[in-house]
Amino acid sequence: MTHLTVPVGLGTRSYDILIGPALLTNIGQEIKQRFLGEKAGRVAIVSDDKVAAHHLENLSASLRDAHIPFTPIIVGSGEKSKSFETLQYVVNALLEARLERSDFVLALGGGVVGDLAGFASAIVRRGMNFIQIPTSLLAQVDSSVGGKTGINTAHGKNLVGAFYQPRLVIADSDVLETLPLRQFRAGYAEVVKYGLINQPDFFHWLDTHWKEVFSGGPARMEAIARSCQSKADIVERDEREAGERALLNLGHTFGHALETATNYNAERLVHGEGVSIGIVLAYQFSAYLNLCSPDVSLKVEAHLQKVGLPTTIQDVPGSLPNAEKFLDIIGQDKKVSRGLLTFILTHNLGECFVAENVAPTSVLSFLKQKLGETS
Amino acid sequence: MTHLTVPVGLGTRSYDILIGPALLTNIGQEIKQRFLGEKAGRVAIVSDDKVAAHHLENLSASLRDAHIPFTPIIVGSGEKSKSFETLQYVVNALLEARLERSDFVLALGGGVVGDLAGFASAIVRRGMNFIQIPTSLLAQVDSSVGGKTGINTAHGKNLVGAFYQPRLVIADSDVLETLPLRQFRAGYAEVVKYGLINQPDFFHWLDTHWKEVFSGGPARMEAIARSCQSKADIVERDEREAGERALLNLGHTFGHALETATNYNAERLVHGEGVSIGIVLAYQFSAYLNLCSPDVSLKVEAHLQKVGLPTTIQDVPGSLPNAEKFLDIIGQDKKVSRGLLTFILTHNLGECFVAENVAPTSVLSFLKQKLGETS
Repeated sequence: MTHLTVPVGLGTRSYDILIGPALLTNIGQEIKQRFLGEKAGRVAIVSDDKVAAHHLENLSASLRDAHIPFTPIIVGSGEKSKSFETLQYVVNALLEARLERSDFVLALGGGVVGDLAGFASAIVRRGMNFIQIPTSLLAQVDSSVGGKTGINTAHGKNLVGAFYQPRLVIADSDVLETLPLRQFRAGYAEVVKYGLINQPDFFHWLDTHWKEVFSGGPARMEAIARSCQSKADIVERDEREAGERALLNLGHTFGHALETATNYNAERLVHGEGVSIGIVLAYQFSAYLNLCSPDVSLKVEAHLQKVGLPTTIQDVPGSLPNAEKFLDIIGQDKKVSRGLLTFILTHNLGECFVAENVAPTSVLSFLKQKLGETS
Repeated sequence: MTHLTVPVGLGTRSYDILIGPALLTNIGQEIKQRFLGEKAGRVAIVSDDKVAAHHLENLSASLRDAHIPFTPIIVGSGEKSKSFETLQYVVNALLEARLERSDFVLALGGGVVGDLAGFASAIVRRGMNFIQIPTSLLAQVDSSVGGKTGINTAHGKNLVGAFYQPRLVIADSDVLETLPLRQFRAGYAEVVKYGLINQPDFFHWLDTHWKEVFSGGPARMEAIARSCQSKADIVERDEREAGERALLNLGHTFGHALETATNYNAERLVHGEGVSIGIVLAYQFSAYLNLCSPDVSLKVEAHLQKVGLPTTIQDVPGSLPNAEKFLDIIGQDKKVSRGLLTFILTHNLGECFVAENVAPTSVLSFLKQKLGETS
């Protein structure tokens, strides 16, 4: 089985996404052939302890074979590493390793490692070369593509960061086999998202083929490539989110609020699960505002339930804030403008649009309904 | 006396530099007319305690007059504020103030405040609008123009940062009157630098008119505008320092090493003084390498001495490292590539070039000579 290539066209910042099996063991040669040629070059590998346990040795062997010296920089796993503290640790480790501007930072891990290492690459020496090696489905289809990097603060998720494109994305489909099923399933929510934004045929394909995507093989590669292509198309038209790119936030405004409300506690909720619930809420909110038929949100909910994803706020274990508090969390989200809220809403299945003028009162009454509060 | 405008042409990131008297008291109107129109908008003012004591009230009054709500964020003065810690403080204060992407961060201060606030603007919400209001001569002619922002780390100066252009630079020539003479003189080293890079006629003009530049009036505005124009020309051709922009580092490799060696202790050395000594060393090093005549470096040294700037390592009070240690500091500087060092050297007065392949052994023997060490 050979690999697929999805090109991301961004002028001088263009790059390829490689998708396929056994890519990890060939990365040293890939870097040598694409970037170094006869030149010497060094790399740093940023990873987390869990991912490193599975894959660091394979990646290291590949770099050794290509005679590329490297320094591993290992952080703790989980969302808590997207912090100023860990950023500072990674930045100092990159400087300590005396990497130069022309050297490469490799992000080996899921969305957390990619966002953190990408942001560190963006700011060390005002910009180092950077390669994404996403090891989770979520990172392969979403966070490793498009150049959004960043960390969280007490005020919310991803409020500090940079637009910074990688030089290459290497999505090894084999590494997904080491993922816990829950993580794989959560990542699948982002795959479905692309269908629900603007490709109803992809959603219908997934509704038929989702079991093969979960079991691996060509259907999984196809789903990953199609997701990456979707994202690349949008990012090419709107790299810095002046407009259309906001569509990629489908499900994320509600989803982020749920993550904040559960303190990013992965026992209770992981990102993709928040997105799954958020997507359903976005479709339901669209129906609530009479923008689309309730049948459409039922279809979406049915598919996500079928694959085993949570679809309601009540699916999140433990106590949660009330509607007022949820609205307050949403208000601090970065997609806010002059008191009105921005949501991704839809007219039909796969016909999403950016709504920049949603009244907070509408959100509040919708949330009260969903939470069973009396107004 | 009306103001001068120097445009910086960078495509969608183009902006103006306004230079002239009494601009500070008109900033509210300027922001309203240029950017806000009828829209509401908020600003944060990032400044340091010393600058705020002189100018915050005037700026605040101007914003109040224009009915623009604002939040002041005040940091300690001095290079130590270019730290991760202070960056985090400013970032959190901007988020706390709930500024949105379309709002404005105003950097009111010298190079430290501009670099710090610019970097915070680059990373909060992945990029806020940002206006430089430089209050030192150094910041007006150099650091506020061209989009280099950043902080220092234990490994060296400006090793962490971003290329991030302001939307506007407002250089009020009146505010320079509140500068201590030593600071003004240090900033003047950066003015001379432009002549010495590639404009010998500007150097000769300064050699004749420097007293008027120090005393104020049209010659000062002229010197500032000409410096900004010089920098804009270079930045327009090479925004991200792929090549020519490195010329602006004339004097800075040696200069930064001196600043590191004195722990950024402003009692012993301020940035512009380091640059003054660094420029002389760069010219002397060029002569040492037989690239230019020793007469040329003598001319440069004579002019800088005349205005009262330090020109030799021995002019720095207190003990300093030996040549070996200096070289080690220089090696950690970011302008290093594969073991060879990059220096800005010259063929003649105002004929500088980027030398990317300087052998460390040459630097070492030159430094030993300057420090009177026996090899």
